Amino acid sequence: MKILVLGGGQLARMMYLAGCPLGMHVRAVDTNKHQVINAISKTPSKSSLQEAIADADVITAEFEHIPEPLLQQAEATGKLKPSAQAIRVGADRVKEKALLDTLNIQNSRYQVITDVAQLDACIAELGENLVLKASRDGYDGYGQWRLTSKDQLAAIKAELETLDLNAVPIIAEQCIQFTRELSVIGARNSRGDVVIYPLAENDHHQGQLHVSIAPAPAIDTLQKEAEAVFHKLTDALDYVGVLAVEFFDTAEGLLVNELAPRVHNSGHWSMNGAVTSQFENHMRAVMNLPLGSTAATGTAMMLNVIGYPTSATELNQLDNGFLHWYGKEAREKRKLAHINLIADSNAALAATLTGFQSKLPETYFPRLAATIKRLNEG
Amino acid sequence: MKILVLGGGQLARMMYLAGCPLGMHVRAVDTNKHQVINAISKTPSKSSLQEAIADADVITAEFEHIPEPLLQQAEATGKLKPSAQAIRVGADRVKEKALLDTLNIQNSRYQVITDVAQLDACIAELGENLVLKASRDGYDGYGQWRLTSKDQLAAIKAELETLDLNAVPIIAEQCIQFTRELSVIGARNSRGDVVIYPLAENDHHQGQLHVSIAPAPAIDTLQKEAEAVFHKLTDALDYVGVLAVEFFDTAEGLLVNELAPRVHNSGHWSMNGAVTSQFENHMRAVMNLPLGSTAATGTAMMLNVIGYPTSATELNQLDNGFLHWYGKEAREKRKLAHINLIADSNAALAATLTGFQSKLPETYFPRLAATIKRLNEG
Repeated sequence: MKILVLGGGQLARMMYLAGCPLGMHVRAVDTNKHQVINAISKTPSKSSLQEAIADADVITAEFEHIPEPLLQQAEATGKLKPSAQAIRVGADRVKEKALLDTLNIQNSRYQVITDVAQLDACIAELGENLVLKASRDGYDGYGQWRLTSKDQLAAIKAELETLDLNAVPIIAEQCIQFTRELSVIGARNSRGDVVIYPLAENDHHQGQLHVSIAPAPAIDTLQKEAEAVFHKLTDALDYVGVLAVEFFDTAEGLLVNELAPRVHNSGHWSMNGAVTSQFENHMRAVMNLPLGSTAATGTAMMLNVIGYPTSATELNQLDNGFLHWYGKEAREKRKLAHINLIADSNAALAATLTGFQSKLPETYFPRLAATIKRLNEG
Repeated sequence: MKILVLGGGQLARMMYLAGCPLGMHVRAVDTNKHQVINAISKTPSKSSLQEAIADADVITAEFEHIPEPLLQQAEATGKLKPSAQAIRVGADRVKEKALLDTLNIQNSRYQVITDVAQLDACIAELGENLVLKASRDGYDGYGQWRLTSKDQLAAIKAELETLDLNAVPIIAEQCIQFTRELSVIGARNSRGDVVIYPLAENDHHQGQLHVSIAPAPAIDTLQKEAEAVFHKLTDALDYVGVLAVEFFDTAEGLLVNELAPRVHNSGHWSMNGAVTSQFENHMRAVMNLPLGSTAATGTAMMLNVIGYPTSATELNQLDNGFLHWYGKEAREKRKLAHINLIADSNAALAATLTGFQSKLPETYFPRLAATIKRLNEG
């Protein structure tokens, strides 16, 4: 069983580690350099990308922003899982929104903006509390714009005027009142078996995930709601692999925020907190094997290590922490590792996390205090 | 963190996989070829053994039968964990028995035979129901001899006459009446922290471990008894790393059968059935890190795949099985993989195992039916 992963970051690394015990040989692809690499050491392979594509039993991806020619090449082999269509949906907010609408899956109201002139009508329709996002990531000059009043419109328009909105449209979304962000992760194999993990509650800071708690506290009927969405999406896409769906928890129920056609940061808790990790289930799914139980073995928490200049040795000193180190050098905003915690209760997790507080600086771990509070409530 | 493992088999492989998330770089040593190898691919490293020994932060071992010059070389660096003394105790039944006696740890009565003539007095003392074992493994002409009556003595003596019993003595042990074999696995780091897993119940066939169930059914006060033995041994040896202790469960309580100064086959269930696997705890222990919880997350079972000409692909098809493939070619009596099962109850494990019966041939898996029966009782 030879699996080629498009992308060579920590997700490919963790796929490699999950694949080994299953007898799978996982190799990664540096999609910038078009080079096949060892997923752990990053050493270039002797094989060319062409050879590795030909040699693989299955090709999968660790991220959705695959260069289009490579995506097409992988698709043409018939070995790409999930499909190029699913990967494109994850990479393009216009496609994503269209799919959600087609399937009658609740999401925030929006308009696709291909011309700056459309913004006035958009505000008339959706109100002036908007977030504007590029439909695809990684384009110069694009970012996210937050509109809270019409007065800001002129300035935003001026910025957008410089962009080719026909080539890369903007999605203007109504801002949502929500109490928290949740995500559901699950896996589906080619024969249509589906397994779904308990919902995770996710805490972001400056646009990056910092903490997930799973199972999320107080989910009541939300698990069923999330699973229904998961089934709709995976059925519609004839999806194969792990899929993540992010939600806003609102007074009107769950609203989909976005999809990720891959293993997902908010599912990393499963490496220590579930019977089967999301990485193992992804490998099983793409190889069309029976899937493993997604049951939580306790109550779990994942803490991201972002930009913090530290070492694995230091992080391994944290009592009751399970380090997952990515082997990268520290850089601002860069995800370097995550630490999983597992316990019998949320209160016990909070106690472990309290032990972390004296060792992890608040600058890099700004959500510790809030998480302890949340765990003690939940 | 660089760890060098003496030995390059599946235990080194699983140490590598456990070390990666902790940011440890694990390399293995083929002790026959005196070559440093990648623990997964077995590819020789560019480093010589001397360089790797110098470069390592810690040296550990996956088996106890390390060639003495290499063991001495590793010991001389001050980086060997567990100590050469502990490894030698595990490799030599004379040393092992002496340690057990010194610590007043119950074990089967025995005599050390360095001359064939001693056998008559031995039978007079211990009776004619004996098992004779070489004190060290891997010597030509040695095996195990089972004596059930004096009448067999002449034939055995004739065989032993050809051996140098002064160099490699024989241990003559009284045969024990026992109901089952149990083992305890635990880890101790240099600062003296100790964690101990629940007892496993082990089922052997023709001298090889086939099945472990953990936590062992009906252990009552035996866990405490086993833990007391574990503490005595690790304290006496100032032990660092994972240690396994095999017991006979007898009417007089637990009797130690043997020690293994390393991660152990009867602890493989912990890879899916415990909060922390024995491999991760071994890596933590030798690096003097805080140890992880050994709590079982359910009820677990380990099934060895021995000599069966099969593939990882085939074994991955078993519903609710967690394969750990060793990447070896099939050969008679060779351990090729193990499969872990985890469930909420022994009855649920039995149900999963019943599903295995139609797929795994009895020739290679002779203990399936008995294990199902045992699980349904336990």
